[in-house]
Amino acid sequence: MAQPQQSDGSGGDKPPLRVGMVGYAFMGAAHSQGWRTVGRVFDLPRRPVLAAICGRDAAAVRAAADRHGWAAAETDWRTLIARDDIDLVDICTPGDSHAEIALAALAVGKHVLCEKPLANTVEQAEAMTEAAEAAHRRGTLAMVGFNYRRVPAAALARRMVAEGRLGTLRHVRVTYLQDWLVDRDFPLTWRLRKELAGSGALGDLGAHIVDLAQYLAGERLAGVSALTETFVPERPLPGGPTSGLAARSAAGTGQVTVDDAALFTGRFLSGALASFEATRYATGRKNALRIELNGERGSLAFDLERLNELSYHDGSEPSTHAGFRRILVTEPDHPYLDAWWPPGHGLGYEHTFVHQARDLVHAIAEGRRPDPSFADGLQVQRVLAAVEESAEKNSVYTPITI
Amino acid sequence: MAQPQQSDGSGGDKPPLRVGMVGYAFMGAAHSQGWRTVGRVFDLPRRPVLAAICGRDAAAVRAAADRHGWAAAETDWRTLIARDDIDLVDICTPGDSHAEIALAALAVGKHVLCEKPLANTVEQAEAMTEAAEAAHRRGTLAMVGFNYRRVPAAALARRMVAEGRLGTLRHVRVTYLQDWLVDRDFPLTWRLRKELAGSGALGDLGAHIVDLAQYLAGERLAGVSALTETFVPERPLPGGPTSGLAARSAAGTGQVTVDDAALFTGRFLSGALASFEATRYATGRKNALRIELNGERGSLAFDLERLNELSYHDGSEPSTHAGFRRILVTEPDHPYLDAWWPPGHGLGYEHTFVHQARDLVHAIAEGRRPDPSFADGLQVQRVLAAVEESAEKNSVYTPITI
Amino acid sequence: MAQPQQSDGSGGDKPPLRVGMVGYAFMGAAHSQGWRTVGRVFDLPRRPVLAAICGRDAAAVRAAADRHGWAAAETDWRTLIARDDIDLVDICTPGDSHAEIALAALAVGKHVLCEKPLANTVEQAEAMTEAAEAAHRRGTLAMVGFNYRRVPAAALARRMVAEGRLGTLRHVRVTYLQDWLVDRDFPLTWRLRKELAGSGALGDLGAHIVDLAQYLAGERLAGVSALTETFVPERPLPGGPTSGLAARSAAGTGQVTVDDAALFTGRFLSGALASFEATRYATGRKNALRIELNGERGSLAFDLERLNELSYHDGSEPSTHAGFRRILVTEPDHPYLDAWWPPGHGLGYEHTFVHQARDLVHAIAEGRRPDPSFADGLQVQRVLAAVEESAEKNSVYTPITI
Amino acid sequence: MAQPQQSDGSGGDKPPLRVGMVGYAFMGAAHSQGWRTVGRVFDLPRRPVLAAICGRDAAAVRAAADRHGWAAAETDWRTLIARDDIDLVDICTPGDSHAEIALAALAVGKHVLCEKPLANTVEQAEAMTEAAEAAHRRGTLAMVGFNYRRVPAAALARRMVAEGRLGTLRHVRVTYLQDWLVDRDFPLTWRLRKELAGSGALGDLGAHIVDLAQYLAGERLAGVSALTETFVPERPLPGGPTSGLAARSAAGTGQVTVDDAALFTGRFLSGALASFEATRYATGRKNALRIELNGERGSLAFDLERLNELSYHDGSEPSTHAGFRRILVTEPDHPYLDAWWPPGHGLGYEHTFVHQARDLVHAIAEGRRPDPSFADGLQVQRVLAAVEESAEKNSVYTPITI
Repeated sequence: MAQPQQSDGSGGDKPPLRVGMVGYAFMGAAHSQGWRTVGRVFDLPRRPVLAAICGRDAAAVRAAADRHGWAAAETDWRTLIARDDIDLVDICTPGDSHAEIALAALAVGKHVLCEKPLANTVEQAEAMTEAAEAAHRRGTLAMVGFNYRRVPAAALARRMVAEGRLGTLRHVRVTYLQDWLVDRDFPLTWRLRKELAGSGALGDLGAHIVDLAQYLAGERLAGVSALTETFVPERPLPGGPTSGLAARSAAGTGQVTVDDAALFTGRFLSGALASFEATRYATGRKNALRIELNGERGSLAFDLERLNELSYHDGSEPSTHAGFRRILVTEPDHPYLDAWWPPGHGLGYEHTFVHQARDLVHAIAEGRRPDPSFADGLQVQRVLAAVEESAEKNSVYTPITI
Repeated sequence: MAQPQQSDGSGGDKPPLRVGMVGYAFMGAAHSQGWRTVGRVFDLPRRPVLAAICGRDAAAVRAAADRHGWAAAETDWRTLIARDDIDLVDICTPGDSHAEIALAALAVGKHVLCEKPLANTVEQAEAMTEAAEAAHRRGTLAMVGFNYRRVPAAALARRMVAEGRLGTLRHVRVTYLQDWLVDRDFPLTWRLRKELAGSGALGDLGAHIVDLAQYLAGERLAGVSALTETFVPERPLPGGPTSGLAARSAAGTGQVTVDDAALFTGRFLSGALASFEATRYATGRKNALRIELNGERGSLAFDLERLNELSYHDGSEPSTHAGFRRILVTEPDHPYLDAWWPPGHGLGYEHTFVHQARDLVHAIAEGRRPDPSFADGLQVQRVLAAVEESAEKNSVYTPITI
Repeated sequence: MAQPQQSDGSGGDKPPLRVGMVGYAFMGAAHSQGWRTVGRVFDLPRRPVLAAICGRDAAAVRAAADRHGWAAAETDWRTLIARDDIDLVDICTPGDSHAEIALAALAVGKHVLCEKPLANTVEQAEAMTEAAEAAHRRGTLAMVGFNYRRVPAAALARRMVAEGRLGTLRHVRVTYLQDWLVDRDFPLTWRLRKELAGSGALGDLGAHIVDLAQYLAGERLAGVSALTETFVPERPLPGGPTSGLAARSAAGTGQVTVDDAALFTGRFLSGALASFEATRYATGRKNALRIELNGERGSLAFDLERLNELSYHDGSEPSTHAGFRRILVTEPDHPYLDAWWPPGHGLGYEHTFVHQARDLVHAIAEGRRPDPSFADGLQVQRVLAAVEESAEKNSVYTPITI
Repeated sequence: MAQPQQSDGSGGDKPPLRVGMVGYAFMGAAHSQGWRTVGRVFDLPRRPVLAAICGRDAAAVRAAADRHGWAAAETDWRTLIARDDIDLVDICTPGDSHAEIALAALAVGKHVLCEKPLANTVEQAEAMTEAAEAAHRRGTLAMVGFNYRRVPAAALARRMVAEGRLGTLRHVRVTYLQDWLVDRDFPLTWRLRKELAGSGALGDLGAHIVDLAQYLAGERLAGVSALTETFVPERPLPGGPTSGLAARSAAGTGQVTVDDAALFTGRFLSGALASFEATRYATGRKNALRIELNGERGSLAFDLERLNELSYHDGSEPSTHAGFRRILVTEPDHPYLDAWWPPGHGLGYEHTFVHQARDLVHAIAEGRRPDPSFADGLQVQRVLAAVEESAEKNSVYTPITI
């Protein structure tokens, strides 16, 4: 009979990458799942350790630590980033605190993963990008969390565009449709307050689709023309802690200070046309991030509500047999998929965070700038700023600052 | 043994409605099918007669008459409208001739059905509308051919919006995507020449979606912000007669003087937001007129490539069971469907022309203004003019003239 | 000014093919639409003439003649087939009268188009086939109306199978799902009475899918194992004339003497496996004839509720880009489509009858056996007989008689 | 400044449930992910601990322990079940060893989770069920791993059927289509050898769909009529270790001793009809477990390739607005979903194992029989045995032993 073989279940003797996370709501839970799972699925050069989690409410953060598997809990992010046993700070707070935390963390040599949007203002994003560039020269790395790049179907789309399968790009159209504000009684959570969230659908959903559109197209927007709207300007005050997209209301009302919806059109530097719509009022659409790219040689389409699928039209097929095909993005030769399940056994939303963690660990181990960098996050911020400027100036076409 | 009963196969002893049609290409074939079929399927107060067809090429128009079942052929539209045995003139020519023919026909008391867009300029459309109003006072009627209102699913959508099923409208998004210009060698047909077609994707496809969006919403656009583009400015000259969307090329090239694509956003008078895209460069999309309306109480979506279906989300359903449902619009209680086949036995594109004919015959028999009227066509023209103006003025938001 | 050119609108000076139709309900209306339209759309060697229509109720048949455009009306089919001015007899009656009419028509040298199923019994079908073979030697032709072969997507599927795109066939699975009997109060129409309809879902829907499966596979079934069921054995008697699939009820009830649903599995001669389901109790499914073929090199799938689409998986594609593609079967190089509208402008159910008429006219003009022949109809009947035999014998696998 | 709060990241002070797992291939990885995640997402009465994993190859099992996070590794399952620090044995081996391991584990008072199919023969399954019943009386529990019951959409479907939303059931049709054997050179892995796998597509895929169909219907099958086939009887021998559904080939060939495909029809005890197809030869179908239930009041449809969706037709809706609706099963009031992400943020295949673990932990904590029990697994086995018997006896209808 064989001796029982002891294992610490830790994933082996690779050098650890000790993560400290700030924030423990929706994004905190999602990032925790990513950090906890990534080393169990992918072969990584370093072993992620869930070292400490940080939040202002001591009891709540302790509960979150237990729930999500973090070894320690902190109530002040300054303490967290000062800890010796932290290599990377993962920022999952609302946008108003991103800059301060990220700058401080980079300053003390911690790698940073910062949730999107990078910041609430271009100025903050510029400062962060400058700090990230400086940190990079010292070997400290920074990434912004546009996790949808890590949906395998989106990564496959990028690869196919890069292979030239679309040819000269003509059109990119993107919507990000949700409906959780349709009810006029939904309360005034932090996401509806400009001082915390920076903007509304624009920063939350629009940031995602601007990044994804540029990522997939492989090029940047030159300018935009925009309309924004706040359909319901006053809402009940929230009645307690909110989490995710759910909330209760209390007595009293307050002003919604962000956009409910943002529509914009634009031109890519190559001359391709783009259209964008971000809204929280599309009744029945829960998470409909839909993007389609039309090029001279082919087209691609994707819908986040069916995230294991990519739709592809190969324009070189004879017309008798041509058509949009539904690629089930679950094959071992699809991005990230060799580590997962057999064909047809799909992944979910949370896996984007596993893949994000994987790519960041590799970048850190190899000392190369992660993708998307803070510079990418800044550029998205500049697009959003141009959107806001255009919306304020009667929709006039507004170039993106470079 | 019973005596054979003689029948002239004409559809009985109802008073005839004698149609004279100008043009015999794609639209001419479609309208012919509509006039030929309508009395066989619907109970009509008058019996449509395919009296005469008109085109400039004598041999071709004669062949078209034989092919499509018209009793006579003319080579000059002035002769056609002068005939005593014509009650209605159906104009299926390119947009540059609409005004002249329609004005002349109305002047001599002929009812008019005019293909969309109503005209190539707002001025022409205004003159036509004025003439139609005057004619209406004399009992002569005019209709513009926005046939997609007569897709049963679109008519059902209109009915559902009118019933209040969507509540306060928030969003309307529409695309009309085709791809027949993707090939740079596709020749310079009349549809690509401003002097004949008026505009490109905008007038051809954009007119349809502006009309359909306003029709379904039950309200009008207040203003628009637009981008237009001509991706391929020079194309080979056509090598012979063209028909439908197919053509051959010849030696030499010429300038494309219309838009290849038009994107615009806008606001409805109620404050709802709208987005529009019309293009002939969406590789793989053949006839993708897609429209979605989101209201506070529900949503509707439609795709012309699946024209027997309407997608409906009832926002009052409990979230456990809510979802977009696919209504197969083939039930006897759906618009136009009681005259056709059993449930599930779908209709096609051409049936829109049968339904258009049906509705026009009823309007004429009852002496009431057909829907859409020339005034509706003029209003669409004004939207298109505002789109062009905005596109020329750096996308600035441009109100629609009332 | 040009002289008006007179045309009789008849489609020219081709030799006529004078059709006499028996029956004027659902199928009669559909066939009328086919005969009336075919010469307007396709270039035919002969010109179909709607010569006479026949039904037992003099007033009703006269009304049908006027409605559908038939020149004469008869009340006795014997008179109809005796007319000198009839070249072809189109049989649209219930199955119990097919044999008698077809035999008589063939005997007097009339071509025959007979609605499916060919007959209510194998014996009748055998006699009809023998008569058709004899008639063929005399230049008189007979076709059975499996119209779904003429859906362009089905014809394209057949072409692709014949091209070897599927390779060795492994699986064929077919359902034909309707739901018009779900309501227990739906009355006992002729379709529910064995003496008129022969069988229930089996003969009505099952005949279609057996024919289509064998047609697409390009081979015949060797044997079947079957279950049939009558869920609601007693129904109200009908309260008046019924048409299509709609009916009213009256007082009293009667016995349903046909199957409500039939399920069977089988083997093709090549060893491929097949499964079939025909039912009128699939709540929410209106006309869901769905077929999928899986071969070693590829797969095809089709759904009659989306009849302008064919789904194709090319097994030779690399797994990175493979997927079922949705071919919009509206291109000019698709079967029958060069005569219709531009790409993306779909057809409907009734067009199958136009295409059936087209193919029959060509076969007659060329003197060759139409496809599907009475022999094909007989073979389908033998499959249905084997299904019934298996269902009676405890589902035992029952070879098809050759 | 707050004191750092220490946490062991273990999920708190709940009593542990120490799991020992046998097998570490595809199912081992999936179960590991389930056990590792469940306590981080759900509030559980006991805290799962990944105590030990067992496999015959010492190096491989040690690597698997590290990879998947198990504290110890064993090479003999007898040693594993003898360990004091194991509360539950999770059996993820091929079917030939299920009975021996489960019986031994239950005998020493370990709870058991056994992968499906429960066993390779009815006899083994009977012994296991008897042992499970006896163990239950001693407080030791046993569950069989039909994980697809734990897809939220499937659990929602079950709830809706139980609520009576379908009324009297008429039809259940299920397919489970894969294509990994289409290539004739795919090697002879253990899944193709009767002595290890018991049967082929039948036991692997058929077991899933028989369980799911009966679970959703809420009733059992009475009898079946079946066809099975082995399309490719000889295959190359495998060239090395295989995992998941991927494998390499070596020199030499061997006999495939299991079915490649199984088709069967059947009757439920209530009289509803059912059809089943399980195959590994459906080119292009990767994991197409599709089930549809039609009842007198409504219908449900589900496709595992789109596992976040449930299709529902409410038969009580007026025909004007009725249609199959796509419920995105991601709402907090959907089964399991309150613990996960906001609406529209879908789950994947592996989450079924998290949910299975959750339900099992609750059952153990509450001392009640888990669902599905070994008795359920035995009943499925009896259906499979009847399928095999029918297939051997010329498809004759074969009752299920009770």
